[in-house]
Amino acid sequence: MTDKISRFLASAQPETPCLVVDLDVIAGNYHALRHYLPLAEVFYAVKANPAPEVIALLAGLGSSFDTASRPEIEAVLAAGVAPGRISFGNTIKKLKDIAWAYERGVRLFAFDSEAELDKLAEAAPGSKVFCRLLMTCEGAEWPLSRKFGCEADMARALMLKARALGLVPYGLSFHVGSQQTRLDQWDLAIGRAAALFRDLAAEGIALAMLNLGGGLPARYRDDVAPVERYAGAIMQAMTDHFGNDLPQMITEPGRSLVGDSGILETEVVLVSRKSFADDERWVYLDVGKFGGLAETMDEAIKYRLQLVGGGEGPSGPVVLAGPTCDSADILYEKHQYQMPLSLKPGDRVRILSTGAYTTSYAAVNFNGFAPLKAYFV
Amino acid sequence: MTDKISRFLASAQPETPCLVVDLDVIAGNYHALRHYLPLAEVFYAVKANPAPEVIALLAGLGSSFDTASRPEIEAVLAAGVAPGRISFGNTIKKLKDIAWAYERGVRLFAFDSEAELDKLAEAAPGSKVFCRLLMTCEGAEWPLSRKFGCEADMARALMLKARALGLVPYGLSFHVGSQQTRLDQWDLAIGRAAALFRDLAAEGIALAMLNLGGGLPARYRDDVAPVERYAGAIMQAMTDHFGNDLPQMITEPGRSLVGDSGILETEVVLVSRKSFADDERWVYLDVGKFGGLAETMDEAIKYRLQLVGGGEGPSGPVVLAGPTCDSADILYEKHQYQMPLSLKPGDRVRILSTGAYTTSYAAVNFNGFAPLKAYFV
Repeated sequence: MTDKISRFLASAQPETPCLVVDLDVIAGNYHALRHYLPLAEVFYAVKANPAPEVIALLAGLGSSFDTASRPEIEAVLAAGVAPGRISFGNTIKKLKDIAWAYERGVRLFAFDSEAELDKLAEAAPGSKVFCRLLMTCEGAEWPLSRKFGCEADMARALMLKARALGLVPYGLSFHVGSQQTRLDQWDLAIGRAAALFRDLAAEGIALAMLNLGGGLPARYRDDVAPVERYAGAIMQAMTDHFGNDLPQMITEPGRSLVGDSGILETEVVLVSRKSFADDERWVYLDVGKFGGLAETMDEAIKYRLQLVGGGEGPSGPVVLAGPTCDSADILYEKHQYQMPLSLKPGDRVRILSTGAYTTSYAAVNFNGFAPLKAYFV
Repeated sequence: MTDKISRFLASAQPETPCLVVDLDVIAGNYHALRHYLPLAEVFYAVKANPAPEVIALLAGLGSSFDTASRPEIEAVLAAGVAPGRISFGNTIKKLKDIAWAYERGVRLFAFDSEAELDKLAEAAPGSKVFCRLLMTCEGAEWPLSRKFGCEADMARALMLKARALGLVPYGLSFHVGSQQTRLDQWDLAIGRAAALFRDLAAEGIALAMLNLGGGLPARYRDDVAPVERYAGAIMQAMTDHFGNDLPQMITEPGRSLVGDSGILETEVVLVSRKSFADDERWVYLDVGKFGGLAETMDEAIKYRLQLVGGGEGPSGPVVLAGPTCDSADILYEKHQYQMPLSLKPGDRVRILSTGAYTTSYAAVNFNGFAPLKAYFV
């Protein structure tokens, strides 16, 4: 909770639910990352928070941009960013969207499969391409499943094919999983990438770039290591595995830049029990899984909560749920939160570190509820 | 797949992904429900598909409406529906929204807790209120957890309190779970409700109405019993438990009216493997969990798929996923679908029975993708 956000909430008294983002926090996180990892070029993962205010801020600070779709590229170009500072980082792209991006000047593309490489050769000839390696993502609170990346032997073959197709086999990428809390996961991934760099060098392909992906955490319920410890672990692994022949490095932070910048101001709609014998209370907020808190799916992201006005007196366990008529719209049931026994409808609850993956995830009008409104201060 | 939808797709050639809804199917489902369950007044659950076209159609057919929020009530009133045909069925309502609905003439409200009853007494004096009973929902493909409803002893006490507060203790409701496939669940629920009717009659409260909720299925991957079998099971249970003193009956169909009316036309964006050794292919469509298919969460709803152009030749197992950079955007991994080995980017895949819980669930712009577009024919 920053002073700027406090002042805004006190003076504007916006209707709940709403997200308030302090842009200074994002700028501070950007500077810290640049400071502790100066060799890595920052490509902000637009999907984490695609608001024009955030893109404009980071564009002004010199960030490059990792984009997932044509509309995201449009948003970044609209902020005056040169296409050379844009990576089309989604490994799943329509041919026509690749062609569109290429025509706008984008020359850096991700892929992880032969079919995607064929599309790139057709619609983005001569571009720089990087292949995403499959990782296991142990220790990540929002793990990446097997959806993205391919095994190293396939990546190797595809890089050879990329050269044959007239593309520039430019580098490798990986992603250790979002909100990754185990620093050793970077060592594992960087080691695997370095081995492939050497393999391909023996084939005459000198890869230029290693894309470290995202994964750096925001601060939710559990404490996380500060960015300097992550930066230290990454640079240690880089020098361990690449020696003094370091490739160009790229990071794609999303959550770690914007997560802690936002406060979601909500109101308690109802506090109830299911029977007279139940100790457990159900607390229904005016925002839920379909109103922006999609990352509570399977209770993956455990946000910190703060009661406005303190909430003195004894506390007890609660199930936290959203306001829709959907039974799946429950935030936390297994990970029991404690709230004051005096909690009542109308009380305000602030959900901290909600600057990432909230506004854009909100349903367009499920149950008639409008998407989450956001203010940038 | 209806002729009208076929003709529309052939002539309009809309961009994918898009939903095409045949309004005649909805009208047919409405008439069938009225025919087989003539004693029950239909309150269409607007949340299933809140499109103005659907509301206008059902309003014209004489349906009443179950609403979840102020914007849903506004949409129904905008269609010219009298407020007496509207139920504010969400048990989680803000005081100011209750007051707003009351001012507009809504006089029928759901609740399941003491705090909600207090709000109703304050903001909707003299209204008819019905209490939702907690059910276990065994056999439902989209079960309702414990989020809604209270135990019978609490419902009893709250109905007594409703009278004391000057409200009209009007009836009871339950919901057996969405896409409920076990007909005996209605018998269980109706039996429990009938017992409470008798209990309250002994206290001088003559409840007038039983709200049977929703739960009737649409047809996804597995066959479901036709509506007449559900209607038969419900009427059997009603006469078993209430004898010839039947209360006014209400149903709140959503999925069963609109689910089968829609076809989601999608395009294959990518087909890939994770390694040369993998038999399993990953098929990425241009719509996923955040683009309208939220009900694939935990693979709960298993849609039927249809390949455009047939897709001859041998098939093999696939993992189906959406187009976003989110690892959770996987549709089916455990429930393995089979698709032709010849499948390639650009092929069209139709997802059947997607008329319910799709458009309104779509994220507002996650990964930059626009919400699901819908056409009504």
